[in-house]
Amino acid sequence: MVKQERAVRTRQAILSAAAKVFEERGYQAATISEILSEAGVTKGALYFHFPSKEHLSQGVLHEQDQWLPVPERSCKVQELADTVMLHAYRLQTEPMVRAGVRLALDQQAHELDRRGPFERWSTIVRELLEKAHAQGELLPHVTAPETADVLVGAFAGVQAMSQAVCEYQDLLTRSSALLRHLLPSVALSSVLASVDLTAGRGEAVTAELRARL
Amino acid sequence: MVKQERAVRTRQAILSAAAKVFEERGYQAATISEILSEAGVTKGALYFHFPSKEHLSQGVLHEQDQWLPVPERSCKVQELADTVMLHAYRLQTEPMVRAGVRLALDQQAHELDRRGPFERWSTIVRELLEKAHAQGELLPHVTAPETADVLVGAFAGVQAMSQAVCEYQDLLTRSSALLRHLLPSVALSSVLASVDLTAGRGEAVTAELRARL
Repeated sequence: MVKQERAVRTRQAILSAAAKVFEERGYQAATISEILSEAGVTKGALYFHFPSKEHLSQGVLHEQDQWLPVPERSCKVQELADTVMLHAYRLQTEPMVRAGVRLALDQQAHELDRRGPFERWSTIVRELLEKAHAQGELLPHVTAPETADVLVGAFAGVQAMSQAVCEYQDLLTRSSALLRHLLPSVALSSVLASVDLTAGRGEAVTAELRARL
Repeated sequence: MVKQERAVRTRQAILSAAAKVFEERGYQAATISEILSEAGVTKGALYFHFPSKEHLSQGVLHEQDQWLPVPERSCKVQELADTVMLHAYRLQTEPMVRAGVRLALDQQAHELDRRGPFERWSTIVRELLEKAHAQGELLPHVTAPETADVLVGAFAGVQAMSQAVCEYQDLLTRSSALLRHLLPSVALSSVLASVDLTAGRGEAVTAELRARL
């Protein structure tokens, strides 16, 4: 293995361990030594990649920002729905995504800049809404930044409620219900008529992405 | 002061102190001794009312459940909007309400039953929706339990985003935007035409409640 490749793997092992520990213990209670023993790397390696707990958590937050872009769709409202449903599916199935969202909502992680994930999400959603608007898919009164903030905030809460109530078991149904409640105020009904907002959408998009690899 | 009245005041002082400490430190990091010194009561008094940290946090969660019922309205969609906007206004202005919401969203408070607040909120919203439905204010396809869960989850996230982005400064605008996005999928447009969903609504309802005292 070339040196650079090994460094990338070590970094990934540390981030996975950090995600697990942050998810289980929360930012404040998590310790570097727990992350070290979970990752199975040397102290030197860890500090080389991440000089502090704050750097570690920023690393986890950054990882979950790198969401998979969904395949481009001619209908931008479908692309937006797919983006949300894919994220819900990943949240249910991938610990790194879950840890990132938990950190972003951890109101005791004062040292962290928790605005980052909200704002980056908002930007992605806003850009999709702007494309949809330009294509004439949205109702004329819609303001992309306002709708983006409502959608991102609302989704954050729906996932938190699903986690509190049943550890994400009903997250896909709840996400689908959220979209069915929000999108009629945003998109033309003639557009919605051919958009798929069902709970199975995230898994279908994941399969589509895998088939493309 | 009669003995019972003094006990009620002591209990209230302890809960206020606990709310402050939980809000600042989070469930996990908060200690009984911090709450003791904040409340200025004896250890005996505290343990008489609340035998453990878990009892203290359940006390705070229970307090914030006791939200002010809004004045009854002939239009139940308005009563629902008022309930949400009053809660947003109280969240912005009352530390006890804030601490309760933070505990409910504290994903590290494993010992706590965090479903309680979500479920009680959902019940209140569901009952208002059922009344609205019975009066013919809602679109025929609406299912009260689903819509109640979407609204409660979405509001929890919108408040968390407002807290992360600007410490609740824009919460009233965001709450109003959420209602403007959700209610058109729920209520008849002829009903919405005479419903007030503006950001100032929570303060107006508070003034109305004070004038009735």
